[in-house]
Parts: sequence; C-alpha cells; structure tokens
Amino acid sequence: MFAPEAPELYPDGAQTFVELTELARPLCGRTRPGHFRGVATVVTKLLCAAKPHVAVFGEKDWQQLTVIRRLVRDLRLDVEIAGVPTVREPDGLALSSRNRRLDAEARRQALVLVRALDAAESAVRAGERDSARLLEGVRREIAKAPRAEIDYAELREPASLAAAPLRLETPTLLALAVFMLPQEPGAAEPVRLIDNRVLHVQPSGRFPVQPTSEEPPR
Amino acid sequence: MFAPEAPELYPDGAQTFVELTELARPLCGRTRPGHFRGVATVVTKLLCAAKPHVAVFGEKDWQQLTVIRRLVRDLRLDVEIAGVPTVREPDGLALSSRNRRLDAEARRQALVLVRALDAAESAVRAGERDSARLLEGVRREIAKAPRAEIDYAELREPASLAAAPLRLETPTLLALAVFMLPQEPGAAEPVRLIDNRVLHVQPSGRFPVQPTSEEPPR
Repeated sequence: MFAPEAPELYPDGAQTFVELTELARPLCGRTRPGHFRGVATVVTKLLCAAKPHVAVFGEKDWQQLTVIRRLVRDLRLDVEIAGVPTVREPDGLALSSRNRRLDAEARRQALVLVRALDAAESAVRAGERDSARLLEGVRREIAKAPRAEIDYAELREPASLAAAPLRLETPTLLALAVFMLPQEPGAAEPVRLIDNRVLHVQPSGRFPVQPTSEEPPR
Repeated sequence: MFAPEAPELYPDGAQTFVELTELARPLCGRTRPGHFRGVATVVTKLLCAAKPHVAVFGEKDWQQLTVIRRLVRDLRLDVEIAGVPTVREPDGLALSSRNRRLDAEARRQALVLVRALDAAESAVRAGERDSARLLEGVRREIAKAPRAEIDYAELREPASLAAAPLRLETPTLLALAVFMLPQEPGAAEPVRLIDNRVLHVQPSGRFPVQPTSEEPPR
C-alpha cells in the first residue's frame, strides 16, 4: 500500500502549488479560501507518485470531483477519474468523518439536507423550472431545522459549475452546505455539512422533444 | 516527435496553473510577473504528457532550471532534469532567439554581459569576497556599454536563489539581466538579455579548511 506520511509529500522547501481558477472559486471555494489549492496540489502529487490507472472520488464532494477531473485533463495526467455515488447512512445522511461531531439532536436535524434535496427533486419532477422558486423551497425546507444554518444553497451547471440560468432547461446541480449549530452558542464549533444532487431537468412543456428513433427518450 | 500545438496544450476551458513561491519571486520573476507560472504550468503539462526519462534544460535560464528542478521534486514527477552548460557564440555571447533582434552595434555591446561575468570571476580568484564590491565591479563593467541598461545584477545562492551574504563564503550565482537599448529612444523595443555564472568561491583565508584525507582538496 502507498500511504505516504506528510513529510514525504511535503518535503522541506516544497513550494509548488497547483491552482485552478473558475472551478475553485464558487461554493466551497468561497467559504474555504485556499482549500482547492491544497486539494489540487496534494492530488497532483499523489497521482504523479502512485501513477494509478484509475482514481476514485466520491460525488459528495462534487466540486472537488470537477476540480480533479479538470486538472487531470489540463495537466495531461494519464489517469482515469471515476466518480462514485455518495455513500449514505441508512436514514440518508451522506457519510462524512464530521458526522461523529454532531450531538444527537443535530444528527437528527442534519437530515434536513437530504429532505431539501428531495423537495427540490420532487418540485422539478412536478414541472418546476424556476431557479428562484426552487431555491426558495430549499431554504424553506432547511429553515424547518432550527439548528441548521445555510452556508450556501446554489444551482449550478454540473460540469463547469457555472451559475444556472433563471429558468432551468438542462440537468442542474443543486449544491448545499449547512452549518449545524451547537445546542448553545459557543458550546462547540459548528459542523459544516455538504450534500448535492443533480436535478434531472428535461427540456419542458411547450416544445416537447420528439424521440427520433424507436428507442425510448432518456 | 511529440511537438504539440497550442490548442492541444491549452484546451478550451483549461484553468489549471502550477505556481512556485520563493524561487519564482526574485530576478526574472520580479521583472516578468507571471512568467514562471507559465513556465511551471507548460513544463508540467509537457512532462506529464511525454513522460520522458530525462529532460534537458540550459543553464542560461538558471532560475528556470531551479524552478523546474523544484517542481519536479515537489510534484514527484518521475523524470531526471539535466542542466547543460550555456551554449555560446564564438565571441562568448550566450545563444538566444533574441540575439537576432540586436542591431550590429548592440550586438557588439552585448558582450558586456560576458565581460562583467569574467570580471567578477577574476576578482573572486584574486580573493575578493565582498558582495557589494563585486557587484560594483559588475556595474562598472556594464556601464562601459552605453547601450546596455541593467535590469538586475545580483548574487544569489545557486540552488535556493536566496540572497547571498555580504561576505561570500560558498559558491555563488552571479545573475545578470540587461536591456540593450535601441540606437534612438523608441526606435525599437529594448532587447532583454540574461546570462549568469556560478562564482567558485572557496572558504577563504583566516581559517583554512584542512583536507581530512590523502586526497587533494577540491
């Protein structure tokens, strides 16, 4: 197993950093400046050192996955990046090392992330295409959990992370970050949780797309 | 031959940059902001794409060579970086694509770079160890060419490019950058030339180093 310790990855005098521009700016990049610089640098080092054929990253960290796919393409690293669906607790909460820092009540309220994603998905399935109304529904859902405070709730183009248009017409990423607050202010650090879902928006209503072959439309 | 065109190296949406901190700041990094970011990024791309066993870079671009050595180590690229001595015209001028932009008189006066390096080397051989006096000699030499204007003339530690001490005690890089001015102001762009030499300073005088074996001291 290749599991290098920090000194091996960050030798004395190390001063090379890998940075991305657009993809690293929004969402978690806004809340955590420099975070994706660290991610891009260490992932580049690990890929160059281990030279894997395939590297697997979870879709929970969707922005990280897009950053890594882009840097692999840009730097021409010879590796296939495989994104895998988010692994979840039985009740739906996305697995995260941070979950253990939640007290029992915060753990219960943390389900609000999945509920907000579900609500948005249902709304889209029911024909909602208006970004603002979708996000309003998401915020309303999260507001039901008094211990949850929104860091961001945004709709973005899944690959480029560009801001989604006012009226959705293609599959759109709904990305959420929420601080779970301690029972009493200052009693503990807030725990920041993230989750996301690609909302499968189909070109809608007025001008339906006709299937051009015998196959069912996807 | 692998000789990619720009679109292959910089595909649409490319946004990944490789940056170094300390090594990229002084000397040419000061005169040309962003230059070493470009160098580090394209060299990383080329090395990752071509996967050579050995990559050869000239010592004329000494700072570039130190930047590349460092990034290869930091990013753990599996390639040997070979520095090769500067190739020169018969009269000593370092080869550069820019030399052809010099008019005949500027071409003649451009030899002032080599003369300044020679002067410093002679002074060191004669026992000079004082940084300021050495640089004074360099500046005096360059001032003999009225069409040459110093961009920088600096003494630095050859590997780290840290500023050299006031009193030299170890091998030291003398790095020069000089603008060769057009005959008449504004008639053409100044041509920026660089050259360098490692001055082989030996620990001197008062506390001579005794050889500890039968082998001659080097």
